[in-house]
Amino acid sequence: MLITRRERFNAAHRLFREDWTDEKNEAFFGKCSNPNWHGHNYILFVTIKGDVNPDTGFVINLKDLSKIVREKVIDKIDHKNLNLEVDFMKNQIVSTENVAIAIWNELKADIKNLGAELYCIKLVETENNFVEYFGN
Amino acid sequence: MLITRRERFNAAHRLFREDWTDEKNEAFFGKCSNPNWHGHNYILFVTIKGDVNPDTGFVINLKDLSKIVREKVIDKIDHKNLNLEVDFMKNQIVSTENVAIAIWNELKADIKNLGAELYCIKLVETENNFVEYFGN
Amino acid sequence: MLITRRERFNAAHRLFREDWTDEKNEAFFGKCSNPNWHGHNYILFVTIKGDVNPDTGFVINLKDLSKIVREKVIDKIDHKNLNLEVDFMKNQIVSTENVAIAIWNELKADIKNLGAELYCIKLVETENNFVEYFGN
Amino acid sequence: MLITRRERFNAAHRLFREDWTDEKNEAFFGKCSNPNWHGHNYILFVTIKGDVNPDTGFVINLKDLSKIVREKVIDKIDHKNLNLEVDFMKNQIVSTENVAIAIWNELKADIKNLGAELYCIKLVETENNFVEYFGN
Amino acid sequence: MLITRRERFNAAHRLFREDWTDEKNEAFFGKCSNPNWHGHNYILFVTIKGDVNPDTGFVINLKDLSKIVREKVIDKIDHKNLNLEVDFMKNQIVSTENVAIAIWNELKADIKNLGAELYCIKLVETENNFVEYFGN
Amino acid sequence: MLITRRERFNAAHRLFREDWTDEKNEAFFGKCSNPNWHGHNYILFVTIKGDVNPDTGFVINLKDLSKIVREKVIDKIDHKNLNLEVDFMKNQIVSTENVAIAIWNELKADIKNLGAELYCIKLVETENNFVEYFGN
Repeated sequence: MLITRRERFNAAHRLFREDWTDEKNEAFFGKCSNPNWHGHNYILFVTIKGDVNPDTGFVINLKDLSKIVREKVIDKIDHKNLNLEVDFMKNQIVSTENVAIAIWNELKADIKNLGAELYCIKLVETENNFVEYFGN
Repeated sequence: MLITRRERFNAAHRLFREDWTDEKNEAFFGKCSNPNWHGHNYILFVTIKGDVNPDTGFVINLKDLSKIVREKVIDKIDHKNLNLEVDFMKNQIVSTENVAIAIWNELKADIKNLGAELYCIKLVETENNFVEYFGN
Repeated sequence: MLITRRERFNAAHRLFREDWTDEKNEAFFGKCSNPNWHGHNYILFVTIKGDVNPDTGFVINLKDLSKIVREKVIDKIDHKNLNLEVDFMKNQIVSTENVAIAIWNELKADIKNLGAELYCIKLVETENNFVEYFGN
Repeated sequence: MLITRRERFNAAHRLFREDWTDEKNEAFFGKCSNPNWHGHNYILFVTIKGDVNPDTGFVINLKDLSKIVREKVIDKIDHKNLNLEVDFMKNQIVSTENVAIAIWNELKADIKNLGAELYCIKLVETENNFVEYFGN
Repeated sequence: MLITRRERFNAAHRLFREDWTDEKNEAFFGKCSNPNWHGHNYILFVTIKGDVNPDTGFVINLKDLSKIVREKVIDKIDHKNLNLEVDFMKNQIVSTENVAIAIWNELKADIKNLGAELYCIKLVETENNFVEYFGN
Repeated sequence: MLITRRERFNAAHRLFREDWTDEKNEAFFGKCSNPNWHGHNYILFVTIKGDVNPDTGFVINLKDLSKIVREKVIDKIDHKNLNLEVDFMKNQIVSTENVAIAIWNELKADIKNLGAELYCIKLVETENNFVEYFGN
């Protein structure tokens, strides 16, 4: 059984490598490399895998899951600059892929402590693009 | 190849255990435990797995699938109280997880009779919460 | 300038008249008249009309609007039975139209106190049905 | 007859007044005032009013409208910082209201040149907030 | 009070004038003029204006409205070729504007017979384009 | 890691077998067999599987993927008749299943040339029906 909680956050970011010139960054990353930033309404789907507890009918209490996702992820990245202000994105290229992996790493242990297993992080950047990460 | 049919139903429910007091139910299940009921516009996705029949281009004729889903599920739960009126939810906690499992059990044999295999029941309770069940 | 805030609530209800038999209620209101209740994920759009304040760029601070809508409406109806538990729906047929009018009446004065004008209450009951009320 | 074209843009912005301290800005504008910016997937609806041309069945050729909206608006603000890089937002508070008014002013004359009339600019900032501007 | 019912239909069409060559049609109507047809999932919103009947809480019984819309519109155009098979589109350019006007004309009298007033036909052709017709 | 790009196309089609009569086709395929065609706004999701390149933060540059999908698929089928005009659908029943398989075959090699692996073709025909193909 998989159970999924959707959360949202609005953030600024820029795709670039510090060791590349602005020109080289723009040639590869396009307008996503704008040095003055741009931003998105990101949509995050956190999917948990587990058995249904016959005493509660729940895989997990979504209140507990939502609390963890808020504390470990949303409060740190909502209305933030993903390149400058988010501890778990430091020294990384802020691609959707890397943000999804970082969110996975932020959540994995806490969800295990709830007695469940993190199964998938789906991160939607625009209505045309999204990634799904299942761990490695 | 997977093929999916979406159906919808509107229903009332309550999360609670009969052997718990209202106070204990509310402490665990929160406002979802309201003794006077609340309700949802549930969205149901029934996913079938099978090979494409070269004579028809179909895994399954969706008219047949839709007919089964309507007769075995939607007609029994649409505009109903899931706790009081639905035979296949009797004596169960009416969590999204348990409703999904019960729908799986209602549909599995009939879909097999169509020559296909039930692959996933996805049940969306709100825009922020959904479950996916793949059998056990 | 119009500015709109979306809020959501999940509630149970029943369409019926106390002075009609269950049969007559069902003949007119159909399955929406089920005596055991059914429910919806209602979506509420509150639209405010006003001029843009040049000092803030705002018609109204949406934090203030959201606070009023939560206190005067959402907290009273979310995860509730609209027929049994909501003071502002007492002795009324709980149609989408009447809920929209009642929400208008709940909000109008408080929004005026914010220095703005309530313009429209849009209430979405299902993906196929909604009402819009502009006062009388 | 009204005809509407939807366009989208992703941008960074910050709500603040230069003559206020960061503290005062945060007290009023909340986390939207973050000095390091945040951003959104904005959705823009441009609505035109006019009669149907019996020779073409069109109020306006949407290819012409889309070209104007792209040149005068989208190309200037997509993947940009609305506070720093957009000529028509200079010296303004970058609220959704003000962006909608500025887009109206950018488009009004060109749409008149097409033989039609700009009727409404609807700008959606998040799934919970949007504004509609009809001129003054 | 406005009340709206959503219906959907899937149809083929082509934008062209019989008195123009294929080249001239393509120059003006673009790929929408393909002589081999293309098609859409159209979404239709029928909006009714009226007072709430205090005896029922309804402006109109949506079952009655839905029946009229199905009989007078959907049954005639769903899974049809709008240019070749729809009586109320004969000898017209099948633009979204003209389809909306024709649907208005199909529905206006029957809705009046229900004791209500047709207020708006909104017809969505793609997620980026829609028209709204309010009569003339 | 999975990364998905959404594209859209509007097309006409008909479900039928040439060796069946119109009556037999209609008995099996229903109104989807209308000889005068009908059509859809198809939504295509192309999902790629791969590792994140530590030099770019990308599984694949979506600009490259989008270019391939446009050239090999969208340009051939958008605003087209899927039965009459699309080379990769010749002599096939134009079911959603078969279109998804054909799109898979069109894209597989080019995506491999980008150093990634095609994982899934999801094709949405209506809001109630979609298929997912993972290769064989």
